[in-house]
Amino acid sequence: MYFLDKCLQYPVKVETPDPLFARQLQQAIGGVEGEIRVCLQYFFQGWGARGPNTKYRDMLLHTATEEIGHIEMLATAVAMNLEEAPLTLQEAAAEANPVVNAVMGGERPRHVVEGMLQRHLLSTGLAAMPTNSDGVPFDCSHIYASGNLAADMFANVAAESTGRTLAVRLYNATKDPGMKDMLSFLIARDTMHQQQWLAVVEELGGFQGALPIPNSFDQSLEKTEFSYAYFGHDKDGAPPPTGRFTDGPSLDGKGQFSALQSDPMGQESVRGPAREGSGAQREQM
Amino acid sequence: MYFLDKCLQYPVKVETPDPLFARQLQQAIGGVEGEIRVCLQYFFQGWGARGPNTKYRDMLLHTATEEIGHIEMLATAVAMNLEEAPLTLQEAAAEANPVVNAVMGGERPRHVVEGMLQRHLLSTGLAAMPTNSDGVPFDCSHIYASGNLAADMFANVAAESTGRTLAVRLYNATKDPGMKDMLSFLIARDTMHQQQWLAVVEELGGFQGALPIPNSFDQSLEKTEFSYAYFGHDKDGAPPPTGRFTDGPSLDGKGQFSALQSDPMGQESVRGPAREGSGAQREQM
Amino acid sequence: MYFLDKCLQYPVKVETPDPLFARQLQQAIGGVEGEIRVCLQYFFQGWGARGPNTKYRDMLLHTATEEIGHIEMLATAVAMNLEEAPLTLQEAAAEANPVVNAVMGGERPRHVVEGMLQRHLLSTGLAAMPTNSDGVPFDCSHIYASGNLAADMFANVAAESTGRTLAVRLYNATKDPGMKDMLSFLIARDTMHQQQWLAVVEELGGFQGALPIPNSFDQSLEKTEFSYAYFGHDKDGAPPPTGRFTDGPSLDGKGQFSALQSDPMGQESVRGPAREGSGAQREQM
Amino acid sequence: MYFLDKCLQYPVKVETPDPLFARQLQQAIGGVEGEIRVCLQYFFQGWGARGPNTKYRDMLLHTATEEIGHIEMLATAVAMNLEEAPLTLQEAAAEANPVVNAVMGGERPRHVVEGMLQRHLLSTGLAAMPTNSDGVPFDCSHIYASGNLAADMFANVAAESTGRTLAVRLYNATKDPGMKDMLSFLIARDTMHQQQWLAVVEELGGFQGALPIPNSFDQSLEKTEFSYAYFGHDKDGAPPPTGRFTDGPSLDGKGQFSALQSDPMGQESVRGPAREGSGAQREQM
Amino acid sequence: MYFLDKCLQYPVKVETPDPLFARQLQQAIGGVEGEIRVCLQYFFQGWGARGPNTKYRDMLLHTATEEIGHIEMLATAVAMNLEEAPLTLQEAAAEANPVVNAVMGGERPRHVVEGMLQRHLLSTGLAAMPTNSDGVPFDCSHIYASGNLAADMFANVAAESTGRTLAVRLYNATKDPGMKDMLSFLIARDTMHQQQWLAVVEELGGFQGALPIPNSFDQSLEKTEFSYAYFGHDKDGAPPPTGRFTDGPSLDGKGQFSALQSDPMGQESVRGPAREGSGAQREQM
Amino acid sequence: MYFLDKCLQYPVKVETPDPLFARQLQQAIGGVEGEIRVCLQYFFQGWGARGPNTKYRDMLLHTATEEIGHIEMLATAVAMNLEEAPLTLQEAAAEANPVVNAVMGGERPRHVVEGMLQRHLLSTGLAAMPTNSDGVPFDCSHIYASGNLAADMFANVAAESTGRTLAVRLYNATKDPGMKDMLSFLIARDTMHQQQWLAVVEELGGFQGALPIPNSFDQSLEKTEFSYAYFGHDKDGAPPPTGRFTDGPSLDGKGQFSALQSDPMGQESVRGPAREGSGAQREQM
Repeated sequence: MYFLDKCLQYPVKVETPDPLFARQLQQAIGGVEGEIRVCLQYFFQGWGARGPNTKYRDMLLHTATEEIGHIEMLATAVAMNLEEAPLTLQEAAAEANPVVNAVMGGERPRHVVEGMLQRHLLSTGLAAMPTNSDGVPFDCSHIYASGNLAADMFANVAAESTGRTLAVRLYNATKDPGMKDMLSFLIARDTMHQQQWLAVVEELGGFQGALPIPNSFDQSLEKTEFSYAYFGHDKDGAPPPTGRFTDGPSLDGKGQFSALQSDPMGQESVRGPAREGSGAQREQM
Repeated sequence: MYFLDKCLQYPVKVETPDPLFARQLQQAIGGVEGEIRVCLQYFFQGWGARGPNTKYRDMLLHTATEEIGHIEMLATAVAMNLEEAPLTLQEAAAEANPVVNAVMGGERPRHVVEGMLQRHLLSTGLAAMPTNSDGVPFDCSHIYASGNLAADMFANVAAESTGRTLAVRLYNATKDPGMKDMLSFLIARDTMHQQQWLAVVEELGGFQGALPIPNSFDQSLEKTEFSYAYFGHDKDGAPPPTGRFTDGPSLDGKGQFSALQSDPMGQESVRGPAREGSGAQREQM
Repeated sequence: MYFLDKCLQYPVKVETPDPLFARQLQQAIGGVEGEIRVCLQYFFQGWGARGPNTKYRDMLLHTATEEIGHIEMLATAVAMNLEEAPLTLQEAAAEANPVVNAVMGGERPRHVVEGMLQRHLLSTGLAAMPTNSDGVPFDCSHIYASGNLAADMFANVAAESTGRTLAVRLYNATKDPGMKDMLSFLIARDTMHQQQWLAVVEELGGFQGALPIPNSFDQSLEKTEFSYAYFGHDKDGAPPPTGRFTDGPSLDGKGQFSALQSDPMGQESVRGPAREGSGAQREQM
Repeated sequence: MYFLDKCLQYPVKVETPDPLFARQLQQAIGGVEGEIRVCLQYFFQGWGARGPNTKYRDMLLHTATEEIGHIEMLATAVAMNLEEAPLTLQEAAAEANPVVNAVMGGERPRHVVEGMLQRHLLSTGLAAMPTNSDGVPFDCSHIYASGNLAADMFANVAAESTGRTLAVRLYNATKDPGMKDMLSFLIARDTMHQQQWLAVVEELGGFQGALPIPNSFDQSLEKTEFSYAYFGHDKDGAPPPTGRFTDGPSLDGKGQFSALQSDPMGQESVRGPAREGSGAQREQM
Repeated sequence: MYFLDKCLQYPVKVETPDPLFARQLQQAIGGVEGEIRVCLQYFFQGWGARGPNTKYRDMLLHTATEEIGHIEMLATAVAMNLEEAPLTLQEAAAEANPVVNAVMGGERPRHVVEGMLQRHLLSTGLAAMPTNSDGVPFDCSHIYASGNLAADMFANVAAESTGRTLAVRLYNATKDPGMKDMLSFLIARDTMHQQQWLAVVEELGGFQGALPIPNSFDQSLEKTEFSYAYFGHDKDGAPPPTGRFTDGPSLDGKGQFSALQSDPMGQESVRGPAREGSGAQREQM
Repeated sequence: MYFLDKCLQYPVKVETPDPLFARQLQQAIGGVEGEIRVCLQYFFQGWGARGPNTKYRDMLLHTATEEIGHIEMLATAVAMNLEEAPLTLQEAAAEANPVVNAVMGGERPRHVVEGMLQRHLLSTGLAAMPTNSDGVPFDCSHIYASGNLAADMFANVAAESTGRTLAVRLYNATKDPGMKDMLSFLIARDTMHQQQWLAVVEELGGFQGALPIPNSFDQSLEKTEFSYAYFGHDKDGAPPPTGRFTDGPSLDGKGQFSALQSDPMGQESVRGPAREGSGAQREQM
């Protein structure tokens, strides 16, 4: 079960509120690279964890709990960036006036009402929402919890890699020192989280022990002649690109990479006539 | 641009059609672990590829092209498993009759109409759909193409890891020899595809060269004191689990893992009153 | 604006309630082939209609209004089919008992709790929902109202064609005389609605006057050498299938059908390096 | 920020694992009446709270934090109910064998593989998912946080009312004593949460002080002649139903209820011709 | 069944078309606070109504029928606000020219093409769509019809509270007198609809008779020691906020409010090893 | 199975990159009128094709294969239009500076960062995504493959009609000669594809042979008295609009059009009381 402390994990400060940056921050809340995703992903992986060792369950739940605090920081940042957002088109027009704008220092992004998420104006009273930066709500099909620990670790590395990429883009997009400071913290945490899940892969035996995933399937049952072959699909049989993936031992140490031209091994797929009563046209029967 | 050959990449045979297995196969078509996902993911990564080296663009497009053929094989398998599906509740009832069923060898799963995807009966005329095994349509928010090559490679490893896990579960779930044969091919291809994307990570410098992702961000700008620390969030400060992720050099060789109790560094988050005209209750102003 | 009459457009009777048929009927309410779709589609087409002639606006709104009554009939039918649904797993188990079942005449589909939409039990108190037969909620991206009258008419023909196909499958799936009677009415209305939208196409000049859609675009601006050519994409250049679409005058009377092998006319697509600050890996720059 | 304790808020025990009940419990996790919804709803309401009084922010965050623990309990319950689920159709067939089943006491629901969420078998390794009982993922458009405190309180009452209704249905659906015990706790919490949000409405002045929502809009600007009138829409002008809503003072004390037949006050809606270049048919211009 | 009158329920006039306001109005059509939602919600509640008294069924259907007319008014308003929208980027650029703009009175929002819903340009021919103001289609999972009359009434109050809040924000956002007039009518109707559903709660016995919802569950079966306790989840046990919800008799008259620190009562949740064949890593078995 | 050629089907050139046009092009990739839709629709129709004649299966698969190349062209065009997009708000502000802008020729759309899809900046590294022009991901419920060949052909005509309408709107919206050239090719292909599917309808017997769809249902089983009648739903019985759809022989040659006032033929729909244990309020029982 869970508990709270009133204070934020790390300070959130905004010097110059910017409603368009509020919109961009939404991607880090409700985007597929965002914090709701990792938070719920780690929770569901932890809550479903099986196996003799509860270490990974605990490790997942601690980090999931940290992530709630990251959503909280970002939601706070969105609300602070919306502090001076125009509520009406008139307000927006006034601000777009060069004279007014000059008085305000000329640095304020103009016409922001056009670039804002309209639901920031209409649905939330100037606060964060669980949507991405284009207003699409987060949907929990993105919570990957496969029941296979190694697969989950790679899903987590992927999530933190796109997450840190997003945080870097946001860092580059703003010049507000408070926002840069908050993002420098979140970027550091993403660095750690990338490492953390890969460290579990190392504990699980690294590439040689953990791969292919799942490692509990008897590999002699797969068509091993195709297990380490890169298939080229060039129409005229031109050779595919080469690289580490076409040459040398495979990374799991269980095969040798090669390159093959892919050719049909199967039949032409022909279905029998449609059945009476199946709603087809008579000509299909 | 793209071309076709009438034949399947690998043979698809079904000895005993089973409408419930048709449903389960849908997960490999339109589930988040399925083939539409990897097919479009590799295409969009390839079509958006930037950089001096077109090798990875090509590598991605060849494999994307292979994946269309995998969807085709699975769609064929679904249609073949639906060949004898009951079209009506009466047909289903007849089959549930012990006498009828005994004649059929007693091995046929009964009451299948209840377990089927109803849209296999009602919407497709007994053919495959781009949905998962519970009937939820595939949605393209699952196509990860981040513009960062390393992040994309890990997303691809994650996709192929859950993909092979799914294929193994399907292999275990059926005893039809044709289906087992087809799945043994797809499992082998998933083995290769896990390897293939990790081989690119190796070419990109391995964990030390590629991490943290994106490696183009000047790491001195992040709060490095938190970049390699595992945070414990136990309510009473009990130490978090330990492991490779709390001890020793980090996998990117740029820090030392440690464990820290997480405590609030930030302020209590307090917002000013709601603005006049913002649709709040008067008491919030 | 709109008005109601307490009675249904056509009688809805159920002799033998069947919770699985209740599930199947959901497809006709909230499936993409269902009545919510056509109802809202005709409303939005009507409400957005432009042009000197209000006839089509009115025609659309009358039929949209009829369709509300069809949703009402189907919702009533779902509730009636759920009348005797088991509320608990125990009830279901009792009914699955052969003795109990024999008493009930042996015709009742057994184990229905397994085949039911669980939300019929858990979310609605045994009533209809705006979802399809696999429980996926209707989503209004399926409301096609393009602002082009002819395009909309074909979208409507498509909707009524899949709609009548669905209704026929439902008719075939049940043997309840009340349900068959209701469906025989809905099938007749779908017959009319297919005709009705095609009659508008005839009024718009038929294929020759209305095509290509939109007919307001100056066709000399398109690459007319490709406007009536069927492209074969066989890998080895084998000729594509032939038929009416490869031979003779086009249906709009503005060209001659032909068949061509498709070959690349464009360049290889190469993108420059990723930009500094764009979150790519350094190797992409 | 947030913290955890390894133990559950309340004991979760399952005497007889039942994969179909695991499916039904999913509605309480990822259904619109479920715990992810209220958890995130209270968090976003709290994080976006404005106004001089932080009491409601805190109140919301404490309860949101409690709700994480409820998701955890339910996820645990799902995993426990899936402990003995068949992994293969053969296993399922064996269990459906009357002899095997008799040995197991004859109480085990049979054919469960048909009634299970297929993704419990294929995607999670027998654990909970953030979906509803028909497999539809939770989507965060259901997080209502309007920026108006009173509107939010009613949204919360609605959520807890459908939530307790669901919990009661689940209580009725199972006879497992462990599950009944867990649900009796969750039902009690839902009772409190219904009360809690209504108590805030009372603090905000009750119906007379808080209504109409938002109470910050100058009511003289609305068309007050229609503010307390129930409109009948009978085609033939038959009077609408009467009740408290057609008679007596309104509940906000600011008007008198009445009943009116609704008649058109507006114009026929006619749009001008479609514009050149807008993609319409020529006949619409 | 249903009928129409060609005229609108209330006049819709637009003095100065504004494509950005057209976008904002979409929230009132296809947003979760909008009219499609309440229209279909009341219809499904009415069509599924059970119980000896048909009054509530009728009351719901009359109001649902009114709501179709509200969608119609808003769709008309959207089309009218799009009358002068730029079809091309060139048109937009011309309008952004200060000289052109001065001629137009300088009041016209500039650069509107950037702020518009692109699908207003590309998909509808300048007409309304069933989406919200950020382009997300309405999805029918938002239709709450629980089978419990009191729960439904609170869901309706919540819908009309967020609906009126939205309408007030739209009223504040525009200065077009026609739009203000239309919205002043819709705001008045929302006032009534908030009252109307609360009047039903009063008829159902008010808070004391109707709560806890559902009132048909024997409250002695719930863990009543937790039924009226507000739980604090502060990490250090600091007392939670107090208020009406921690003190005095509960609003249903069936208990006394209190405040408690929440502490774990349950076990640590430990799962057994993963099963052979379940697709886990070997280390989990 | 499938193959590729490195070159594009048709040249893609962009003279003046325009990030807002990149956004608009997204509709042609991931919108419901776009190329992912037709590509997957033709594939699933082909893969599920039944009947003695494989011609239509092949015809569908060739065109589906062509459509992959169209997505590729459009994805290339999006990336090229994003080449000079601002990565930061500062860059955008600089460009909005009149002096800077004048230097650039004054033709560059300003403030583009506000009008861009934010995910083009944040999620893709300036590349195409499988979403529409408002950022909503494509969802595969739009893949219509009904198992009825004629219904599918009309669905395809509808898709290509809205597709060509969209392409025409995009052609009108840009003045970039490269983009106009590319679109003139895609428009031509849409012309052909409209023709192609209608040619199949002709082969299937035209309107007289193919209608009503499905033509395999014995039409004597429908309520034929309503099969060719247009229903008026005017509240006061005013006659509905007349036209080809109310007069003359039906287009399938099987009936005569007429117009009828629609009146209730059915009963008032009354449900019994809610059942004990169904979660209703006691007053509903």
